[in-house]
Amino acid sequence: MEIHAKQARPDNQNRANRARMLISCPDGPGIVAAVSHFLHQHGANIVQSDQYTMDPSGGMFFMRIEFYLPQLENNLEKLKTDFAEVAGRFQMEWTLSAVSRKKRLAIFVSKEDHCLVELLWQWQAGDLDADIALVVSNHLDMKDYVESFGIPYHHIPVTADTKKEAEQRQLEVIGNDVDVIILARYMQIISPMFIEHYRNRIINIHHSFLPAFVGGKPYAQAYNRGVKIIGATAHYVTEELDGGPIIEQDVQRVSHGDDVTELKRIGRTIERVVLARAVKWHVEDRVLVHENKTVVF
Amino acid sequence: MEIHAKQARPDNQNRANRARMLISCPDGPGIVAAVSHFLHQHGANIVQSDQYTMDPSGGMFFMRIEFYLPQLENNLEKLKTDFAEVAGRFQMEWTLSAVSRKKRLAIFVSKEDHCLVELLWQWQAGDLDADIALVVSNHLDMKDYVESFGIPYHHIPVTADTKKEAEQRQLEVIGNDVDVIILARYMQIISPMFIEHYRNRIINIHHSFLPAFVGGKPYAQAYNRGVKIIGATAHYVTEELDGGPIIEQDVQRVSHGDDVTELKRIGRTIERVVLARAVKWHVEDRVLVHENKTVVF
Amino acid sequence: MEIHAKQARPDNQNRANRARMLISCPDGPGIVAAVSHFLHQHGANIVQSDQYTMDPSGGMFFMRIEFYLPQLENNLEKLKTDFAEVAGRFQMEWTLSAVSRKKRLAIFVSKEDHCLVELLWQWQAGDLDADIALVVSNHLDMKDYVESFGIPYHHIPVTADTKKEAEQRQLEVIGNDVDVIILARYMQIISPMFIEHYRNRIINIHHSFLPAFVGGKPYAQAYNRGVKIIGATAHYVTEELDGGPIIEQDVQRVSHGDDVTELKRIGRTIERVVLARAVKWHVEDRVLVHENKTVVF
Amino acid sequence: MEIHAKQARPDNQNRANRARMLISCPDGPGIVAAVSHFLHQHGANIVQSDQYTMDPSGGMFFMRIEFYLPQLENNLEKLKTDFAEVAGRFQMEWTLSAVSRKKRLAIFVSKEDHCLVELLWQWQAGDLDADIALVVSNHLDMKDYVESFGIPYHHIPVTADTKKEAEQRQLEVIGNDVDVIILARYMQIISPMFIEHYRNRIINIHHSFLPAFVGGKPYAQAYNRGVKIIGATAHYVTEELDGGPIIEQDVQRVSHGDDVTELKRIGRTIERVVLARAVKWHVEDRVLVHENKTVVF
Repeated sequence: MEIHAKQARPDNQNRANRARMLISCPDGPGIVAAVSHFLHQHGANIVQSDQYTMDPSGGMFFMRIEFYLPQLENNLEKLKTDFAEVAGRFQMEWTLSAVSRKKRLAIFVSKEDHCLVELLWQWQAGDLDADIALVVSNHLDMKDYVESFGIPYHHIPVTADTKKEAEQRQLEVIGNDVDVIILARYMQIISPMFIEHYRNRIINIHHSFLPAFVGGKPYAQAYNRGVKIIGATAHYVTEELDGGPIIEQDVQRVSHGDDVTELKRIGRTIERVVLARAVKWHVEDRVLVHENKTVVF
Repeated sequence: MEIHAKQARPDNQNRANRARMLISCPDGPGIVAAVSHFLHQHGANIVQSDQYTMDPSGGMFFMRIEFYLPQLENNLEKLKTDFAEVAGRFQMEWTLSAVSRKKRLAIFVSKEDHCLVELLWQWQAGDLDADIALVVSNHLDMKDYVESFGIPYHHIPVTADTKKEAEQRQLEVIGNDVDVIILARYMQIISPMFIEHYRNRIINIHHSFLPAFVGGKPYAQAYNRGVKIIGATAHYVTEELDGGPIIEQDVQRVSHGDDVTELKRIGRTIERVVLARAVKWHVEDRVLVHENKTVVF
Repeated sequence: MEIHAKQARPDNQNRANRARMLISCPDGPGIVAAVSHFLHQHGANIVQSDQYTMDPSGGMFFMRIEFYLPQLENNLEKLKTDFAEVAGRFQMEWTLSAVSRKKRLAIFVSKEDHCLVELLWQWQAGDLDADIALVVSNHLDMKDYVESFGIPYHHIPVTADTKKEAEQRQLEVIGNDVDVIILARYMQIISPMFIEHYRNRIINIHHSFLPAFVGGKPYAQAYNRGVKIIGATAHYVTEELDGGPIIEQDVQRVSHGDDVTELKRIGRTIERVVLARAVKWHVEDRVLVHENKTVVF
Repeated sequence: MEIHAKQARPDNQNRANRARMLISCPDGPGIVAAVSHFLHQHGANIVQSDQYTMDPSGGMFFMRIEFYLPQLENNLEKLKTDFAEVAGRFQMEWTLSAVSRKKRLAIFVSKEDHCLVELLWQWQAGDLDADIALVVSNHLDMKDYVESFGIPYHHIPVTADTKKEAEQRQLEVIGNDVDVIILARYMQIISPMFIEHYRNRIINIHHSFLPAFVGGKPYAQAYNRGVKIIGATAHYVTEELDGGPIIEQDVQRVSHGDDVTELKRIGRTIERVVLARAVKWHVEDRVLVHENKTVVF
């Protein structure tokens, strides 16, 4: 379809020769000086930089730097090798990757389509700077739709009895070059085994303002409690149900006149917007995880 | 002080000869017709009317009517007597009161002043159409401030041992003509005995987006959970801690950079705005309680 | 496609035997009584009712009533005939229509797809209770996409020279049974001749928080002014550019770091949500126009 | 009064030995490296750092750094002297000031009290880290209230004929050690002569969502236009009425049922919150002005 063909991507000139660093380490004097001096020495120009130090002193230091370096591709490996010395000095956990190297997504979905539709629309509008490697579903409902975009669709049914085998099959079809898994209203609990493979790389959208209304039927829970505002929460998946690090949340006002059906309708728009924001931030290397919380730059 | 003297009240012409009805009853045919026919027959003109029927059929019907009736004061008692027949026919719970008859508030406060300051400012700005009968506190901090408005301040200390006597003393100073009690960051749990005296007439502000973070230190809880939005909730007090019918909630976005102190600072403005709205709605007869939820017109 | 086939519509039981009235008239005593008495006499049960009286006295009265009437279809015409007497007495402008009779939409679009995609998604999700009769565009970009839903797509190019003929052609393809025209980012100015045919029945989405940034390139205007919040406005089209009655607006916070491209990206989500809300409210008979303003129930 | 005495200020330990730099200069390679290297060499530890580069390349670079330096007081002057070399190399405009050195405010007010009351409440709650040097008013209304806080109140009436002399008198009472002037609903237009003395140091609150509803009676304008959202804008005062650089804006939803009085009531809370945020950001050195826009870190 014409619409699928256009795929107006972000300006390539803005992505060529750009890279991003994410750094976490114990706070101490001289970190910013050391990193910026290192980059300057290597001919890089800092385009954007954010940092955050947890209080009180003795806390953690977090930093995101986006920089421009001519002929980045030829220099990236050497940059990484050289930076290891700086990183070692400050006990840094760090990543360094070219902006032009798009993250690869696997999207998991069940029957509700709104989050998937939003991600695909943002992707083809060029607003989601990532590649969608595949879609995995325990149902067939979205197959034709997904395949019309030229994206592989893997139907892997899941039952209580076959869960282990199903997850094994999921890991196989995902393969080795997927960076992040998006649970776009995927209505199955992920096992600790599976989570271990993608620690802090599985993003779920929960249809409530966490930590309120953990678990099933959050809109019914919200209706019964009589809240005046409903919300949605995108978070990394951990072993604790709906308990992982929160990436983004948003809310909307409701009234006594909204029944559960209406709450779901209003909620669908919050869910898709919140999930899409969280995915965008993740693929742009804006999210750092520390213990059970996120720093979002 | 000059500022205290001005007290620009709502236009008296808008309040004279106006009355409000609040009605709850099982839904059925002919309720609106019966009520509006009754009012028309008695010479009243409906100025504002709101209604809501809980689905599914067989649910409850709720209505708020504001009407204008010349020489209301002379006719109010007869109106009430005559309406009893209509009310009986539809098994209505109802109230009917003159707008000019202001609700009387008792405000309970501990040490944090922001909610009390907001209520007093709105009151003297004429935005809170009520009389403040007295302030009760387990501390002395706000005494001079409150008395500078000409409002009686009752200092009633509360300890674990003296709680029963303290509540008894509170009931005495409140007396018989207070309509609603506002807990403006009053940091004591109210006993079931006390609640029974003011069922659905005690409004508390809880400094979280309920039902998240029930109980103590909600901002510390919010910080530890890493939420991206914080909130406050005004609710009627019931025997279940922070579990009563919610009147109003609001929220504000926060970031990883906000520590507990900053969450409290941001939260104070949410708390005072949410509480002031809930009190305003209550004194304007906009809130009906049904089971553990509110209908707010 | 499977997704297009599902079209989970609102529960038919909720729509059968339901009708809605919209009433505008000069305020005066007895209107609610007369209308509710009329409906009760005819066996109808009011499900929802909203009213609003413009102040000061001597102003206009507006009302929306949704009611249930067994065998509505057989009785609707007689109901209308009988109501004419009541309406005449109070100089009412009024409409009365069965909820089951869906409004028919014509959607106009140019090249930007986000508003159209949103409306189609909400329509097929069952959230937009209307029929989409046709799509009209001055470009071919969206043809395949629209036709994949089984919706006719009329490509009518417009140039300065051919505008008059183009609008004539548009009126022809629309025919006589379209209720409302949605300008879903249709980038042509509508002529007074065309507007006259669909007075208060053409809904436009303007990509700014009106009345700020009327006219072209509102995001560039917003960027240049340095606003901290951007918005979108859905309004009825009148002869004054971006000056018609506002139905709905919404906003989102932006920062100094957002360039025009980013403002557009953020804005697209505001635009589609605001337009979809306005269309929903219009097709549910929730919007009354009075002079250059709307009453939205 | 007890409440006035408490003035719980921010933790002194957090302010001692801390300083802030604000830098604007043409973008180029090595700026961050040079600044952070300079600070590290002088024994300072960066606590918080934000930067922003305007696109496209060849744009401006903006930076805010907060750092900790033992014995700051003894070293501040030398730090400034030494930094001049770095600044000269990159053509920087810059400021460097100790956090413990509080900004001094002059607040201008007319008859409406809500913005002044908010600032004084935030100040005495310790949320506004500044000294209030004096209040200037063309009316007497707030005199007793302001003086009860121990703050000097200067009553300087203004008429069309005496404007020039009045402004001269204002400049005299302000003297030489006020950093910023807050127009807290001060209903007089400031002359270019006066503005010149406090370029980018006069903050006004305008009671609309600028650039909508410039000039007088913005709530009446908003009501007549039928907007669904109202707002307020804090901006630096320039020679163009309501046209200066915007620091902060916020909004709230309204409905057809809100008349001008109600819009004003709702608006008052937006105004005071928006103004207080803008003042807080200014006194914390978070705002840089470039041409007619602000960068807010």
